[in-house]
Amino acid sequence: MATVGLACARLCVGLLRGHTAPCLRPVRAFSAMTAAQIDEEVAKLLQLKAQLGGDDGKHVFVLKTAKGTRDYNPKQMAIREKVFNTIISCFKRHGAETIDTPVFELKETLTGKYGEDSKLIYDLKDQGGELLSLRYDLTVPFARYLAMNKITNIKRYHIAKVYRRDNPAMTRGRYREFYQCDFDIAGQYDPMIPDAECLKIVYEILSELDLGDFRIKVNDRRILDGMFAVCGVPDEKFRTICSTVDKLDKAPWEDVKNEMVNEKGLSEEVADQIGEYVSMQGGMDLAERLLQDPKLSQSKQACAGLADMKQLFSYLQLFQVTDKVMFDLSLARGLDYYTGVIYEAVLCQTLQAPVVAEQNGAVPGDEANVSVGSVAGGGRYDGLVGMFDPKGKKVPCVGVSIGIERIFSLMEQKAELSAEKVRTTETQVLVASAQKNLLEERLKLTSELWNAGIKAEVLYKKNPKLLTQLQHCEESGIPLVAILGEQELKDGVVKLRTVASREEVDVSREQLVEELKRRTSELP
Amino acid sequence: MATVGLACARLCVGLLRGHTAPCLRPVRAFSAMTAAQIDEEVAKLLQLKAQLGGDDGKHVFVLKTAKGTRDYNPKQMAIREKVFNTIISCFKRHGAETIDTPVFELKETLTGKYGEDSKLIYDLKDQGGELLSLRYDLTVPFARYLAMNKITNIKRYHIAKVYRRDNPAMTRGRYREFYQCDFDIAGQYDPMIPDAECLKIVYEILSELDLGDFRIKVNDRRILDGMFAVCGVPDEKFRTICSTVDKLDKAPWEDVKNEMVNEKGLSEEVADQIGEYVSMQGGMDLAERLLQDPKLSQSKQACAGLADMKQLFSYLQLFQVTDKVMFDLSLARGLDYYTGVIYEAVLCQTLQAPVVAEQNGAVPGDEANVSVGSVAGGGRYDGLVGMFDPKGKKVPCVGVSIGIERIFSLMEQKAELSAEKVRTTETQVLVASAQKNLLEERLKLTSELWNAGIKAEVLYKKNPKLLTQLQHCEESGIPLVAILGEQELKDGVVKLRTVASREEVDVSREQLVEELKRRTSELP
Repeated sequence: MATVGLACARLCVGLLRGHTAPCLRPVRAFSAMTAAQIDEEVAKLLQLKAQLGGDDGKHVFVLKTAKGTRDYNPKQMAIREKVFNTIISCFKRHGAETIDTPVFELKETLTGKYGEDSKLIYDLKDQGGELLSLRYDLTVPFARYLAMNKITNIKRYHIAKVYRRDNPAMTRGRYREFYQCDFDIAGQYDPMIPDAECLKIVYEILSELDLGDFRIKVNDRRILDGMFAVCGVPDEKFRTICSTVDKLDKAPWEDVKNEMVNEKGLSEEVADQIGEYVSMQGGMDLAERLLQDPKLSQSKQACAGLADMKQLFSYLQLFQVTDKVMFDLSLARGLDYYTGVIYEAVLCQTLQAPVVAEQNGAVPGDEANVSVGSVAGGGRYDGLVGMFDPKGKKVPCVGVSIGIERIFSLMEQKAELSAEKVRTTETQVLVASAQKNLLEERLKLTSELWNAGIKAEVLYKKNPKLLTQLQHCEESGIPLVAILGEQELKDGVVKLRTVASREEVDVSREQLVEELKRRTSELP
Repeated sequence: MATVGLACARLCVGLLRGHTAPCLRPVRAFSAMTAAQIDEEVAKLLQLKAQLGGDDGKHVFVLKTAKGTRDYNPKQMAIREKVFNTIISCFKRHGAETIDTPVFELKETLTGKYGEDSKLIYDLKDQGGELLSLRYDLTVPFARYLAMNKITNIKRYHIAKVYRRDNPAMTRGRYREFYQCDFDIAGQYDPMIPDAECLKIVYEILSELDLGDFRIKVNDRRILDGMFAVCGVPDEKFRTICSTVDKLDKAPWEDVKNEMVNEKGLSEEVADQIGEYVSMQGGMDLAERLLQDPKLSQSKQACAGLADMKQLFSYLQLFQVTDKVMFDLSLARGLDYYTGVIYEAVLCQTLQAPVVAEQNGAVPGDEANVSVGSVAGGGRYDGLVGMFDPKGKKVPCVGVSIGIERIFSLMEQKAELSAEKVRTTETQVLVASAQKNLLEERLKLTSELWNAGIKAEVLYKKNPKLLTQLQHCEESGIPLVAILGEQELKDGVVKLRTVASREEVDVSREQLVEELKRRTSELP
């Protein structure tokens, strides 16, 4: 309780900042404060801040979305729907079920799962009751779900938004609110079979989305740990050195080495030994070679990882995906919870330079393109579920997360460069009229079409011009117009116009629905 | 600034609660605190609370979701997907586009939009930077989106979760995190045409979901305001009396009257006059009668509302939905932003008593069923977008929100009562073997099927028993098994087994994909 009292004493000094006589009180009394009392004081302070009117003391209402977030407009949503359909089809093809979890979790559920990244978690305001945080990924909620429901076997996907108070780089598809598409396999199985399926899934999705060439890097936390051990990194520094190695995809070796030596306190010799290993890339051959490596083979952990790596590659050969997968000792991944195989997919394609250059402070005329970086990542986390189980019962898990935002950014660019117009509605027919006073008739026909399952629109005007109605079709890509007039009503027909060809034919009211169905099934 | 200083002085007293000599300081000095200083003090206080270990001073980690929230398991997700598909199909049939907005907004965006319900908004913790809140509905973010992007015409749907710190009644489908399915039409159009389409949509969705009989109540804010005016309610009490009238769907008139008289300060005569009006229900005839009402017809507002109500009913007749729609003067709806027509749909069906009774504190044996209440609601809000536009430019809007959680609850009950098993995967075929050492062959075949677009699974065991494999099919409803054995491999065939009939036929490897496609297209 001493620290609590001290914090409170400091706090009172803080509150009285600017006074000549600080109001310091004995430690004993402060420690008597209850959580409820603190709640009350916090509420008062924040109310005070609200009265001050935000961070700068001045109040100007700004019409914007929160920092690092964006709206999706209908065109972006159409692209998003297409991408999701591809991904969900793949997950379903592999026999996955789906679940959903709340957007916020008890704060404690997330505590101690993300290593150095925990500072990026969004907390909810303490408004009384439980302390809550927005989910940081879908993996920890999944593990919590398994433990809570005592599930030991499941293959599930989960597509939802996650939240990170990161520095957004929105032009490269990095947001504070972003989608993750996760596929995970939980259960005690024979080694590397589910792991290989995860990589197969990444391969299928990235191929189907047609984003150009890609590579999937694979490594194993046990190989990394074994490597650190034989190079002479002290046990307690494994995780932090792992985080440093993880920067190799963005920074050159010299910077990484510098951090190891000057910030993390490794000797230059140890760093150089790590440097030798992390420059290695290959396939099954590299795993075999390293199993013979006089130094690395002294680590039991590394050997277990290398043997599994060989096994993994043998399954990947059966799945015919080895052309894009490489064993890369520099792959580390930042999160704490991985225990075995880890992987990450990168696109070889680069974003169009003009789009991103100015946002990145590049010199105008600088021709260097910016890599979109990782678009999928994951690995094995056999200990995470056990952290939630009251008895520590483990459920081995392996999974992959598709980083969909960067893919959206690329698809949007592609759509903009292409001549094809993205339709944002699926309307098949507009019910129109050339003459006045036919609103009731238009509404009646539209209602008939809706009831028959035809996607139909009608303009919300009593007497719209025919031209206005045809323009609406052109703009939103509606292929057909059903035109009503006095004569058509008398004859019991509708004039059916094809927007593209401007052809018109009379169709009897009884046959209209059938004719529309026939025509729309022929459309692309 | 005086209030700020006072709040701060009170606060210091609060912090020192329990001391004999309260540390009161002059007001002037406290008012010098900046927002940044407050941030710091708040952080310290909350850290202190964290050290205290939650609200009770003891720390026990509880494995649960946050209060008022729930996970969706695969079976619930299968039901949810079905319901969403019905709703989205309807929205698309009516030519709607879709958008998405972030889960949190600037706090200010939500301020002053929800009347008495504003206290239910979840705020994010002030971690530096902008003050944020979780969205309370999808309507205010939609209005913000329109104003921000200067959009004056759109028909859009938005399906997403919203957040309310309400008292959850989860058995009745009331959660703190819940889905809304919104359809809105923005734009300056001829009166009541988009409004009628919204009601048609509610009618279509509730009919297609097959939830039993339902009613859609309709009223108009202008009629309510006119009624309050002619009954003698002072102008400044319109909104608060409106909130009281809104309780009529849950409470008897006597309680509502009591609140009007004893809490809101109306005279008994005024309350009784209101009571007479709010007991009225009907259709177009009631609108016509009230237009002749000597008292109500004195209000211009009421007359405008009644004329529009007549027009609305004439369109609803064309849409053939008047059998379920009724003009009901007791319908008020709580939200501040409505300006014209309002509506709400209720199911006539009630929830199974045993499921909910004990949660509601009902006496065991109490036969009374609990109504699921409102499952859709909405109305016209012509002023909301203008609240966000820097020049106050208005965009008239009308929309409807489907309260999907209650519908989920009903569908889940229905599924449980029905004998039919809900499938949670779409797997068409399991690749199996009866003999040992065929893992590689199973993986190879499975991969071939995936590549051909067949939904296939394989057990992640080196040598699973055939029985285990067949059991997996029974449990998860997989209709077909492709069985590999030494003989089949030699003959270049696969034994294709129908799980339901136990029939087996040999199919050549070359024809397998085609045969699987043929068979799965025949399945229900």
